[in-house]
Amino acid sequence: MTLVAEILAIGDELVHGALLDTNSKWLAGELEAMGAVVQRFVVVSDDPVELRAVIADSCARADVVVATGGLGPTLDDRTRDVVADVLGGPLWFHEESWAQVQQWLQGRRRPVPESNRRQAMLPPGAVPIANPVGTAPGFQVKIGKAWFFAVPGVPREMKVLMRDHVLGVVAKMPGLRPMAQLWLRVLGPSEALLGERIEKFMVPHRNPAVGITASGGLLTIRIVASAQTREQAAGLCETTAAELRPLLGDWLFCEGTVELPEAVVQRLKAAGCTLALAESCTGGLAAARLVDVPGASAVFRGGVVAYADESKEDLLGVPRAVLQQHGAVSEPVAAAMAEGARARFGADVALSTTGVAGPDGGTAQKPVGMVCFALASADGTRAWTLRIPDLGRAFVRDRAVFEVWRALLARSP
Amino acid sequence: MTLVAEILAIGDELVHGALLDTNSKWLAGELEAMGAVVQRFVVVSDDPVELRAVIADSCARADVVVATGGLGPTLDDRTRDVVADVLGGPLWFHEESWAQVQQWLQGRRRPVPESNRRQAMLPPGAVPIANPVGTAPGFQVKIGKAWFFAVPGVPREMKVLMRDHVLGVVAKMPGLRPMAQLWLRVLGPSEALLGERIEKFMVPHRNPAVGITASGGLLTIRIVASAQTREQAAGLCETTAAELRPLLGDWLFCEGTVELPEAVVQRLKAAGCTLALAESCTGGLAAARLVDVPGASAVFRGGVVAYADESKEDLLGVPRAVLQQHGAVSEPVAAAMAEGARARFGADVALSTTGVAGPDGGTAQKPVGMVCFALASADGTRAWTLRIPDLGRAFVRDRAVFEVWRALLARSP
Repeated sequence: MTLVAEILAIGDELVHGALLDTNSKWLAGELEAMGAVVQRFVVVSDDPVELRAVIADSCARADVVVATGGLGPTLDDRTRDVVADVLGGPLWFHEESWAQVQQWLQGRRRPVPESNRRQAMLPPGAVPIANPVGTAPGFQVKIGKAWFFAVPGVPREMKVLMRDHVLGVVAKMPGLRPMAQLWLRVLGPSEALLGERIEKFMVPHRNPAVGITASGGLLTIRIVASAQTREQAAGLCETTAAELRPLLGDWLFCEGTVELPEAVVQRLKAAGCTLALAESCTGGLAAARLVDVPGASAVFRGGVVAYADESKEDLLGVPRAVLQQHGAVSEPVAAAMAEGARARFGADVALSTTGVAGPDGGTAQKPVGMVCFALASADGTRAWTLRIPDLGRAFVRDRAVFEVWRALLARSP
Repeated sequence: MTLVAEILAIGDELVHGALLDTNSKWLAGELEAMGAVVQRFVVVSDDPVELRAVIADSCARADVVVATGGLGPTLDDRTRDVVADVLGGPLWFHEESWAQVQQWLQGRRRPVPESNRRQAMLPPGAVPIANPVGTAPGFQVKIGKAWFFAVPGVPREMKVLMRDHVLGVVAKMPGLRPMAQLWLRVLGPSEALLGERIEKFMVPHRNPAVGITASGGLLTIRIVASAQTREQAAGLCETTAAELRPLLGDWLFCEGTVELPEAVVQRLKAAGCTLALAESCTGGLAAARLVDVPGASAVFRGGVVAYADESKEDLLGVPRAVLQQHGAVSEPVAAAMAEGARARFGADVALSTTGVAGPDGGTAQKPVGMVCFALASADGTRAWTLRIPDLGRAFVRDRAVFEVWRALLARSP
């Protein structure tokens, strides 16, 4: 029997649309990588009646339920109380947890509000999970046949409790089925066209399973295999990938299981190469995504967000004559921006974007979605133009950023 | 009776942790603003058995169910088939939808793969919802007592179908309870300390409800009221806010229901003021979030991401002597960065960040989390330092970006 997991995210702010739940995605990735099958996420309010039903239902369906949120010190956090209610017993006070909460606050020279005492209360039979990075301890308890784990909703605290404790406990449970993934990144075709090309792989209950995900013009073919060992699963993925590659041709530009900015940092690091960016229509988005990658500072020298023409001149040294003759959205300006950024940041490689992201500013000659790029290096400068479908400002910018990653990954190291 | 809504997000890539579901949050915000009560989100795989159970359960509990995803042209998209199965009848082919799909593709000079025909199939009794921005039409159908709406999973297509059609249909349904929200943004106290201060407001079933959300050091007090009319609900929010403000004092720095970058753009626009940014430790994050706001180009002149010392010198004109004497993370360097950005971008106001985001690079004198800021304007330059708790690189950067918004909003217009 395969170990089945469900993930709960608890909080009024989530279900009312005020805050985005990013925890469940992260948890699913970790649990799947471990060999559990994640069946469902449920996002639910702090309302005790709803929450009770959701917890009871998930614990009836799954072997493992991980719940985030509702462990704060304030009265609108009710996970502890509702779990006690599901188990039909009173909360009890765990002295040691209260000592840890006090110690944590005192170590930061913060006051110790009495309301934090609530965080040391536990449902009957629960075992506390210490929180070294915040005041909310988690807990684990058996509900019916399921193991229920409650961890804080703050993502950084959630991750620490999962890595320090919960994932280790789950790893020892029966029913984990070793698995592996491989992602093929594709730019070019529509989803339907790609789907038709690889249709025979996309059938239910195939192992490895093959699926397509579309996001901002980027298509990802996800190959997911399970087997007796992780190595066997990885082998199955590779066999399927070897059959897919000839069908993809030039569309395929990257393989792996890391996000693209991380792949770019790895590639640049391996090549001992530094990077600068000169962004106009992408407005700092490429820089911000790069800097999110730990260790990016080893390769990323910096960037300029040059919206106005004057800043292209003053900060990147684009000659006024080039701007006047060709206009800001042009390959010569893109080339001058990349060369300016390369020189001013002293980088090995520089990449630039300048385009019409919309909704306004398009003309017949330079419609919304037209974006010019240039890549400057010791080998010279290459500029090119993309006509991105006008599917909204966010789409044009996202697609342009994917083109930045594609160009940086396509460069031979 | 209040209209109860549930939201489903369908797709293997979601439940396996490969793609983040952002649709449900957006949908919840729209439905709640309209006066529906959103009770639950469920994220589920394309597996027909699981999907069937989730759709049937949600339709048994709620008045309205909105499902995103699983409408693509490929075989791994199964929402249409499963809904037909729930309703116990075969799919039927809707000629007009197929004509629209073909027309959409031909208008973009794309091939028309036969596999797109699947997107014109509808469950029994379903009414198609035209998709003017993509190939996947949505549909609506009654399942038991609930109205079930299926829309594409691609966020930009989903939003168009919701705004053009679904929200208008829901707006005419009975049971909407007019509501209003007000958010008070707080920087300074811990969540527990703030919770204790406003404890008497945070009781179950209060109207307006008062809750606290914590994110990257920012605390948001959410006041949510329902009443006979939206105006009455807004009045109730204001009454509660008036009671809360004296308890918050200096902690409170912004009110409203818009995200902070949008509030900054609005404030600058109202003041007729342009902005430039010089970012070191925040690495373009502030610029990227600003540029996400439609209309940001009216006030945002541009920014420099100056990681290396040399780029602080070359691009922002920070004197080498200042860098050598005080170090890159210092108020004099922050001040010179802001002044340099203000001059080079010709902006009215410029803001800079320079700090130690970690995990490495901290010293006893300049520990991880120490961030210097400066704000330069025609009134002169002000620099200040924040010691952000070292709760990880992402936390330090997020908290620093919140400080950027706080400083720009605190500036008297």
